[in-house]
Amino acid sequence: MTLLENLMWRYATKKMNGQPVPQEKINYILEAVRLAPSSAGIQPYKVFVISNKEKLEQIKIIANNQSQIADCSHLLVFAAWDSYSYDKIDKVASLVVSERNLPENAMDDFKKRYWSVLEPLGQEWHKNHAAKQAYIALGIAVAAAAEQRVDATPMEGFDAAKLDMFLGLDQSGLKSVVILPLGYRDEQNDWLVNLKKVRTPKEEFITEFN
Amino acid sequence: MTLLENLMWRYATKKMNGQPVPQEKINYILEAVRLAPSSAGIQPYKVFVISNKEKLEQIKIIANNQSQIADCSHLLVFAAWDSYSYDKIDKVASLVVSERNLPENAMDDFKKRYWSVLEPLGQEWHKNHAAKQAYIALGIAVAAAAEQRVDATPMEGFDAAKLDMFLGLDQSGLKSVVILPLGYRDEQNDWLVNLKKVRTPKEEFITEFN
Repeated sequence: MTLLENLMWRYATKKMNGQPVPQEKINYILEAVRLAPSSAGIQPYKVFVISNKEKLEQIKIIANNQSQIADCSHLLVFAAWDSYSYDKIDKVASLVVSERNLPENAMDDFKKRYWSVLEPLGQEWHKNHAAKQAYIALGIAVAAAAEQRVDATPMEGFDAAKLDMFLGLDQSGLKSVVILPLGYRDEQNDWLVNLKKVRTPKEEFITEFN
Repeated sequence: MTLLENLMWRYATKKMNGQPVPQEKINYILEAVRLAPSSAGIQPYKVFVISNKEKLEQIKIIANNQSQIADCSHLLVFAAWDSYSYDKIDKVASLVVSERNLPENAMDDFKKRYWSVLEPLGQEWHKNHAAKQAYIALGIAVAAAAEQRVDATPMEGFDAAKLDMFLGLDQSGLKSVVILPLGYRDEQNDWLVNLKKVRTPKEEFITEFN
């Protein structure tokens, strides 16, 4: 199946049936997320994967009681850096140096240049920028799940501060920005399953300069 | 090929060779972008597609002279709403009503509820939220391009205000947030083409609560 066919298959599942998703499918989706591009390859976010049923019930409460959180198989939480720092960039650069067997100073210019761009932009900008990188990965996760015929419902409606506390992120420099339950649609009880997918018409959405 | 194989194939192409990408591949990528999910299905962004060589040369100048902009085949510009409004949400809701043949007032509750959440968050929040939705589509675009064996390089390094002016967006309520040249790698002259893809190791990137 092509990506377009997969995107036509998927929808924001409103009711899941509680069936488990095989671990290899979860691993596949997570690997796609890990391969997602990000600004300068920094990957300024981490992913938390919750399959523990009690924890899911608790998270459901801090996510407006959205049923998919309790009825999914695995919940992905994308948690982005709350700010950039020279040290964080240095750590990524060191990984590049070692993975590519580069001379030790090969990334020095990059580090200085990238930080000189980021530093003056301030923490609020950093936070939003890091979150946007996580959203690229969210798009990839949705595509990967659909390819695996796993349902996935991107969600922003949750109390991020409470979720951060629940996951022990409050002192970690990470803030949860978006969550993605993975599971299987409950075809009998999902009001959205048979409704037409609606998107902005092409003529309105796209403008070409040829 | 699977999405994972496609993601392994792709990389942030640093030098493109100027060869044109067939229109049907561009259309395929744009259709994938149009099908990308967004918060409440609002799709708070539009996509501009530039293939005119003179225009690309001019955009290159306002994008730090990054060579891919002149050497790509088509440049996608993702331009997000600079704010939300009740009218904008109403327009999307009306489309849903007509596409799904719903009673005229079927989306009234949704409109009120969604706007009551968005309104107090303010314009700066709106702008960032809309941009994040565009980044979901950016992730999908990267996956679609890779599937079509079209190279794509997500870029944030451009003067957004100048690009908005150039595209005539200054009075439109849209702000360009990220751009994506689509083309073909110049294997002989791209320093990155043969370097190892580096990503945060799985153990650091993912935390599981089983």
